[in-house]
Amino acid sequence: MNRGQLISEIKKKQSFLCVGLDPDLNKIPAHLLKEEDPLFAFNKAIIDATRKFVVAYKPNLAFYECHGPKGWESFQKTVDYIGDDILCIADAKRGDIGNTSSYYAKTFFETYNCDAITVAPYMGEDSVQPFLNFENKWVALLALNSNKGANDFQFIKNQEGEHLFEQVIIKSKKWGNEDNLMFVVGATRPEYMSLVRKHAPNHFLLVPGVGAQGGSLSDISEVGWNDDCGLLINSSRSIIYASNKDDFAKCAGMEALRMQAEMKEIGLKKGLF
Amino acid sequence: MNRGQLISEIKKKQSFLCVGLDPDLNKIPAHLLKEEDPLFAFNKAIIDATRKFVVAYKPNLAFYECHGPKGWESFQKTVDYIGDDILCIADAKRGDIGNTSSYYAKTFFETYNCDAITVAPYMGEDSVQPFLNFENKWVALLALNSNKGANDFQFIKNQEGEHLFEQVIIKSKKWGNEDNLMFVVGATRPEYMSLVRKHAPNHFLLVPGVGAQGGSLSDISEVGWNDDCGLLINSSRSIIYASNKDDFAKCAGMEALRMQAEMKEIGLKKGLF
Repeated sequence: MNRGQLISEIKKKQSFLCVGLDPDLNKIPAHLLKEEDPLFAFNKAIIDATRKFVVAYKPNLAFYECHGPKGWESFQKTVDYIGDDILCIADAKRGDIGNTSSYYAKTFFETYNCDAITVAPYMGEDSVQPFLNFENKWVALLALNSNKGANDFQFIKNQEGEHLFEQVIIKSKKWGNEDNLMFVVGATRPEYMSLVRKHAPNHFLLVPGVGAQGGSLSDISEVGWNDDCGLLINSSRSIIYASNKDDFAKCAGMEALRMQAEMKEIGLKKGLF
Repeated sequence: MNRGQLISEIKKKQSFLCVGLDPDLNKIPAHLLKEEDPLFAFNKAIIDATRKFVVAYKPNLAFYECHGPKGWESFQKTVDYIGDDILCIADAKRGDIGNTSSYYAKTFFETYNCDAITVAPYMGEDSVQPFLNFENKWVALLALNSNKGANDFQFIKNQEGEHLFEQVIIKSKKWGNEDNLMFVVGATRPEYMSLVRKHAPNHFLLVPGVGAQGGSLSDISEVGWNDDCGLLINSSRSIIYASNKDDFAKCAGMEALRMQAEMKEIGLKKGLF
């Protein structure tokens, strides 16, 4: 999915919601455990209930890998079921020397037909570049994460007073462009969003941390919005685990609708919808 | 495998060699492509030919993942075949928020019975800690990589003049200890090894970049050696692709033996062997 198509879907659905598909056997409704493929059964129900309200899904690979080869089959079925009109972001946080990264890129863009992958920046340009060589595919590069540990290294300042997360954005902008590179910026740190937008006014931002992690949709949208919306707000647990009973899918759909409605208000106010 | 066992194996085999198992269908001998599981057939032959000379294997997950679920079966068979007396390092470079990292840890330490996993430090303490909670398992944390892109961020200095890779070592030493944490330090940068050893005199270092990437075994051993050896020198391509003909395993064994002999000399000179 290219940038134009993504923006078009955002306008059509009046939503910039991404739902994280992190199926945890300890949290999904017990009756699904009897299914042949509980992970996919859960995801399918969540996707059916939410797809009208979302523009992206973000399966988190840890929740599939831990089940061995069978987990990867669940992942494959999930990606296929998401289909072509919704952005599928493999939350895999890969990154290695160039030759190895090119195999990770093939994995997620070819073996599985994902649209985007999250990538860790620590190893620099040749670890990221191989992911940027695929047409209509995206890198979501970690910049400023939502977790506590982001404080350990991401705020280190260089001699010019730029934080590490700023340097990641400044440098990587030269590796990719607004059509194939977005940045991961946590919703839990809206006070730094203006710095992110200073360096990347036009890039899309993938924003985790709304919901269970405490970030505010309205706060982050206020500071992160650009002319094309420019935001994909991710929510995982607050939607997919809205209920752990038989009504889990219905509750997930209602929570996604609630967030979409809030997003619609924001987009209308901004004049994009 | 714990630290004492690892040191014991190093002394017994007079070797601190790690072989990277990166089976690439474009590079392995053509006759193996007819096998039902070419990846495992290749690895098995390499392991049979080299296991006397090595103390660790390091399968690189990218080369398995790209084949889908079948690739993970090859990985599983490889880990099992390596067995208990050789350290098995999953070169996966994972790292995510705490809850997710705990699933990655379960994947590699429980679903697959690896001894160690490479982890990326960008997301900080809570992204690394879950990997350190397993008895007799190891984190190999990226510090100073061997690739060109390492220059992009790893040498950024903070106000105190410490490079990012030093800060990674200084902080993470408090999260783990010498029994469960080692650092990845590329052999291509021996001039920085003394800085690494200043901060981590007793930790094991996993050192890629000898061989195809140009690092020198004697140079890196001279500056990186500690009282327990403290080094695992990794070589991938120069061993596993020593030949791409029928004699590939024999050639791999000969190259591993050549490196082991060089290591034996070093260990004898240092008085450990």
